[in-house]
Amino acid sequence: MSIKPGDLILFYIDSKRKFIQRIEPGKILGTDRGVIRHDDVIGRRLGEQISTSRGFKAYLLKPLPVDFLSAMRRVTQVIYPKDVSLMVYLAGVSEGAKVLEGGVGTGHVTAVLAYLVGEKGRVFAVDVDEAKLKKAMENLDKLGLMNRVVFIRKDIREWSGERDFDAAILDVPDPWNSIRVIHESLKPSSPLLAFLPTINQVEKTVAGMKGLFTDIHVYETLVREYLVLQDGTRPSPRMIGHTGFIVFGRKII
Amino acid sequence: MSIKPGDLILFYIDSKRKFIQRIEPGKILGTDRGVIRHDDVIGRRLGEQISTSRGFKAYLLKPLPVDFLSAMRRVTQVIYPKDVSLMVYLAGVSEGAKVLEGGVGTGHVTAVLAYLVGEKGRVFAVDVDEAKLKKAMENLDKLGLMNRVVFIRKDIREWSGERDFDAAILDVPDPWNSIRVIHESLKPSSPLLAFLPTINQVEKTVAGMKGLFTDIHVYETLVREYLVLQDGTRPSPRMIGHTGFIVFGRKII
Amino acid sequence: MSIKPGDLILFYIDSKRKFIQRIEPGKILGTDRGVIRHDDVIGRRLGEQISTSRGFKAYLLKPLPVDFLSAMRRVTQVIYPKDVSLMVYLAGVSEGAKVLEGGVGTGHVTAVLAYLVGEKGRVFAVDVDEAKLKKAMENLDKLGLMNRVVFIRKDIREWSGERDFDAAILDVPDPWNSIRVIHESLKPSSPLLAFLPTINQVEKTVAGMKGLFTDIHVYETLVREYLVLQDGTRPSPRMIGHTGFIVFGRKII
Amino acid sequence: MSIKPGDLILFYIDSKRKFIQRIEPGKILGTDRGVIRHDDVIGRRLGEQISTSRGFKAYLLKPLPVDFLSAMRRVTQVIYPKDVSLMVYLAGVSEGAKVLEGGVGTGHVTAVLAYLVGEKGRVFAVDVDEAKLKKAMENLDKLGLMNRVVFIRKDIREWSGERDFDAAILDVPDPWNSIRVIHESLKPSSPLLAFLPTINQVEKTVAGMKGLFTDIHVYETLVREYLVLQDGTRPSPRMIGHTGFIVFGRKII
Repeated sequence: MSIKPGDLILFYIDSKRKFIQRIEPGKILGTDRGVIRHDDVIGRRLGEQISTSRGFKAYLLKPLPVDFLSAMRRVTQVIYPKDVSLMVYLAGVSEGAKVLEGGVGTGHVTAVLAYLVGEKGRVFAVDVDEAKLKKAMENLDKLGLMNRVVFIRKDIREWSGERDFDAAILDVPDPWNSIRVIHESLKPSSPLLAFLPTINQVEKTVAGMKGLFTDIHVYETLVREYLVLQDGTRPSPRMIGHTGFIVFGRKII
Repeated sequence: MSIKPGDLILFYIDSKRKFIQRIEPGKILGTDRGVIRHDDVIGRRLGEQISTSRGFKAYLLKPLPVDFLSAMRRVTQVIYPKDVSLMVYLAGVSEGAKVLEGGVGTGHVTAVLAYLVGEKGRVFAVDVDEAKLKKAMENLDKLGLMNRVVFIRKDIREWSGERDFDAAILDVPDPWNSIRVIHESLKPSSPLLAFLPTINQVEKTVAGMKGLFTDIHVYETLVREYLVLQDGTRPSPRMIGHTGFIVFGRKII
Repeated sequence: MSIKPGDLILFYIDSKRKFIQRIEPGKILGTDRGVIRHDDVIGRRLGEQISTSRGFKAYLLKPLPVDFLSAMRRVTQVIYPKDVSLMVYLAGVSEGAKVLEGGVGTGHVTAVLAYLVGEKGRVFAVDVDEAKLKKAMENLDKLGLMNRVVFIRKDIREWSGERDFDAAILDVPDPWNSIRVIHESLKPSSPLLAFLPTINQVEKTVAGMKGLFTDIHVYETLVREYLVLQDGTRPSPRMIGHTGFIVFGRKII
Repeated sequence: MSIKPGDLILFYIDSKRKFIQRIEPGKILGTDRGVIRHDDVIGRRLGEQISTSRGFKAYLLKPLPVDFLSAMRRVTQVIYPKDVSLMVYLAGVSEGAKVLEGGVGTGHVTAVLAYLVGEKGRVFAVDVDEAKLKKAMENLDKLGLMNRVVFIRKDIREWSGERDFDAAILDVPDPWNSIRVIHESLKPSSPLLAFLPTINQVEKTVAGMKGLFTDIHVYETLVREYLVLQDGTRPSPRMIGHTGFIVFGRKII
């Protein structure tokens, strides 16, 4: 299976130089490590190595969700893989799911959700901010995931219309103001996930969920990277500190 | 949509009392908080509350991957949700994927993979230990996920046959002895994930992956739970310490 | 320098079996690993090994602050070494210091402070609860540190009398109610340390310190232990989760 | 007690702008927030506020060990307060102690040790690198702690001479090569502390300590800072990742 025009390719130079592009004759990938002509990529196989104009090596790979951020121009603080991974797991998002997303941000979570719901699933991505929606759409389009997402410009606090969601994910500053409409929109037993930077937001959200949701839990993820190097193995000196808290609960009736 | 015989239900009493059972007329769930007759559950709706014989409340919920461990009799150390969630995310497991699993343990990871690959996906669950395979099969059967899994009794180090996997996940003590056969069995660019308790295993695995895989990373996850209680909010005094390291890499050719 | 009656000795069998006793002819140390007669210890040297009646080995060591908890009967939740170590460091407690301690608990922090202030320093250990004071006194007495501590039964919120402290350490549920009297009792620039289980207590304490203290910081310590074993090296599967937050500030005038 | 020439003062503008200087008529502290003339400081009291030439506020404080790094020009990777605090605690360093330090680095640990051993204690600071010794001396001199330290240019692996140390602290790349001489130099039962970046160094050090030391433990500290701000409380987004492992043991004979 050789690479052909229209394929979505991850150019992997190193951990900090990952680029996702759709292959197009004549197109050129420019990086600070040199350029790569798409024409030189066409006909090669996934997993192969190619040289940049400056002699650096790049691997041609199939993008995975963990790469999605590389394809995105950020318009706001994003939710990191360490958090997205736990959120979509807790939400049980998979094939055919219909998911409500309140607050699209840069579209990172939207993209992961779209990836996981598959061809028949749908993500309803709701944001009140048109600029963010537009940017998220561009980002999803780059990843070829647009057809799985319905973008809607609306204040999630006033959500109505589509219901019976399998899961809801909120990345808004005041989820407690949306809890009732989210509760109404979810299928019974379905999970709500909220991502929140401060403890105070967590407290208000949890208070608002009482009586409407059960199995309420609050998590924070910390991921350490370990470096296995010539001179020894150690945890990385760099570590992402706090990003946000993850609030989980399931709709009761 | 009321609950009917054959439905898979999570009986949620509290965080430590979660029970997954398939509804069956005449069957009884026994717990240290009292019993619940399935006959009393039939006809009720998801999200509803029911009382145990001792007056404790249980919610009737749809099981999510995070509940799968509750349904399993453990035969060995399991991989926890905090780790499984990151592993399946990094592996990009979704609709239609064909995944190779070396070392099934209790079947916990197998179940999550089966959940995520969907109706058309397949998990090839390989273990040399017949007793573990049998237990894993029972556990998968309880969850209704057997039809997505091919259980194979074989030493993963001697894997042959099925190829072109979208991802491989190893939970064996010596992944470095399987790296070549795994590499051959994966589609180009596809990820390998290994879960390992000790640093020394990590070092040997990473060394073995060099030249066959790129984007090699080693992670450890720590998840803190926060308690939002009447008398204040705090991180939980209990915290899971070290479970294992997650090694990630993508096949190059 | 051989061990003689009156010496304070740590009997170290293993990490969970550490016993501090003052050597006394005729006395016997009883443990679940067998007994050791003090008479058999007299004349031996520090660092030597001795056998219990059941043949287990015990090392004869000089107690260090990290062992103090082993000597104490606990009457309440104690502050762990991971936290005490940072607190006394931040407080800069050393030779000759005069320290005010509000809330003595079991006397663990009192003992570490007494150890650090030396012969000429003084710890004013204040608690409203007579039972706790009594137990703390017993514990300090065992460690031979009584002469460095002035125990006072009083509500720290109504502290008056002794002033010009080099540092103050609070382990009470409502430090915000003591901040003014503590401020008055400290030397200008001297640090206040408070140990608090919940975020809400932290918020109230920090709010109360504003304008009276500067360089206000809130810390939480996590200590991981690593096991270097025959079959490999790894972080310990057991880890102390949340204990409390440490609030720090320096008196301004 | 007003500030006078010769006093060691911490000028505290904010967490990132802490400056330690000895007050000297005519001297000027220059910062990116403006300058402060020492002449304006003389006669003021500790805990008071003073304005920089640009109108920023600075507090006049007494330096504590946690500030020592602010006074130091760094010549190498330093050991952070989060680690120093646990190390000196485990070592039980206090009034009158005689401590052996192998590898002085920038002098940060040396300074904390000197602070803690008091007037009658002594730190033997040994380093093979003259440039580092010189810089450490300058740093200790600034802090007025020189008279408590004996600086010695020597390879710690060949240590001889002074013995009967109450504690030894090693910050060298190969402590396993010094373990025998350290063991000989320590008083029986006295602790050895080593600070090591990699797991492999830890393994070799622990292996070398077996049979010569007991109560061997390996720790790693993680300290989280919490921000209590107008818009909410949260752990800091910035967190120091891995610095090093702390190996502890006590001399047996």
